[in-house]
Amino acid sequence: MAAPLLFYFDFISPYGYFASLRIEELAASHGRAVDWRPMLLGVSVMKVMGLKPLLDTPLKGDYIRRDVLRHARRDGIALGRDLAAPVGNPLPAARAFWWVKKQRPELAGALAHALYHAFWGEGRDLSTPQALATVALPAGLAPAELAAAAASEEAAQLLREAVAASLEAGIFGSPTIVVDGEPFWGADRLQDVDAWLRCGGW
Amino acid sequence: MAAPLLFYFDFISPYGYFASLRIEELAASHGRAVDWRPMLLGVSVMKVMGLKPLLDTPLKGDYIRRDVLRHARRDGIALGRDLAAPVGNPLPAARAFWWVKKQRPELAGALAHALYHAFWGEGRDLSTPQALATVALPAGLAPAELAAAAASEEAAQLLREAVAASLEAGIFGSPTIVVDGEPFWGADRLQDVDAWLRCGGW
Repeated sequence: MAAPLLFYFDFISPYGYFASLRIEELAASHGRAVDWRPMLLGVSVMKVMGLKPLLDTPLKGDYIRRDVLRHARRDGIALGRDLAAPVGNPLPAARAFWWVKKQRPELAGALAHALYHAFWGEGRDLSTPQALATVALPAGLAPAELAAAAASEEAAQLLREAVAASLEAGIFGSPTIVVDGEPFWGADRLQDVDAWLRCGGW
Repeated sequence: MAAPLLFYFDFISPYGYFASLRIEELAASHGRAVDWRPMLLGVSVMKVMGLKPLLDTPLKGDYIRRDVLRHARRDGIALGRDLAAPVGNPLPAARAFWWVKKQRPELAGALAHALYHAFWGEGRDLSTPQALATVALPAGLAPAELAAAAASEEAAQLLREAVAASLEAGIFGSPTIVVDGEPFWGADRLQDVDAWLRCGGW
């Protein structure tokens, strides 16, 4: 089987959520799997790039709120979050994810969907390890176990390494899909990813 | 005839160039005209939003250079500019454009294409009023006249007013296409513009 598509995303990114709902079907149509790789926009965008959070940027923030709602309407995606509310803390979800991916990699994709759905579809607060225990989890994962993982130093270290690796790979935005070394940034680039897989590049 | 599509762009924006090559055909297929509105990313992005120029942003700059070349290859667009070179000064072209739009509005579209082609297709320097006189201009425009317009206080004032109006309208990126009040930012959103025109929104 050919290499998986690398799917870099931040749980607080609505465009990452939109793309997460379509990436597996797209990958499977080309005989590929998805390698889920949460990163932190707070590190790449704010610390490394020196930019502001998207929704706090004058002019752009208003546009993005409008565009996210329009995208959701177009694709029939229910959004449970108020886009004017504080953006939330992705650390517990991202830490728990990387711990699960290491311990039980076969559950990683289902967990990414569960966490994304809880945050964006249901509008749940996931800003603490305890809050993760309220998420409807894939079979094989216990709520208390996930909460403990999110609070662990091991998970924190795994996330630090993952974020460093994502920066090393030049990843700065969510979602970014890497196809055989070729990066595509943005939920509106899935068609390009599809074409690239079909043509083997151009 | 229904209202024209408002096409906001900066002459230094490669994505604006890409979209400029397709926007008239798209508009015409829905019985619309195009209202060309050059603005200045240097004002919207840098002064108002407080961001850096795209190509100077760590991580993102490298991606954008790669993406621009990929987009050009995909669509068979020849680029005469080195993306690593300084980005250039869009003021003379934008000033001359607004002067011509006021004096001879019927030439505005042809002039936008001529200037964009000179800058991105041929890689010409357009950073001074004199340089504009080297551009292959639409019939009815004399090179010396365009150079004089670009250097005039009247043109500078027209551009200042246009930039202020674009900010007032919430425009921050190039290209931005506004369809009956609905803004779409990015050359990769032309499909959404097409769908919005077909459906009357969603």
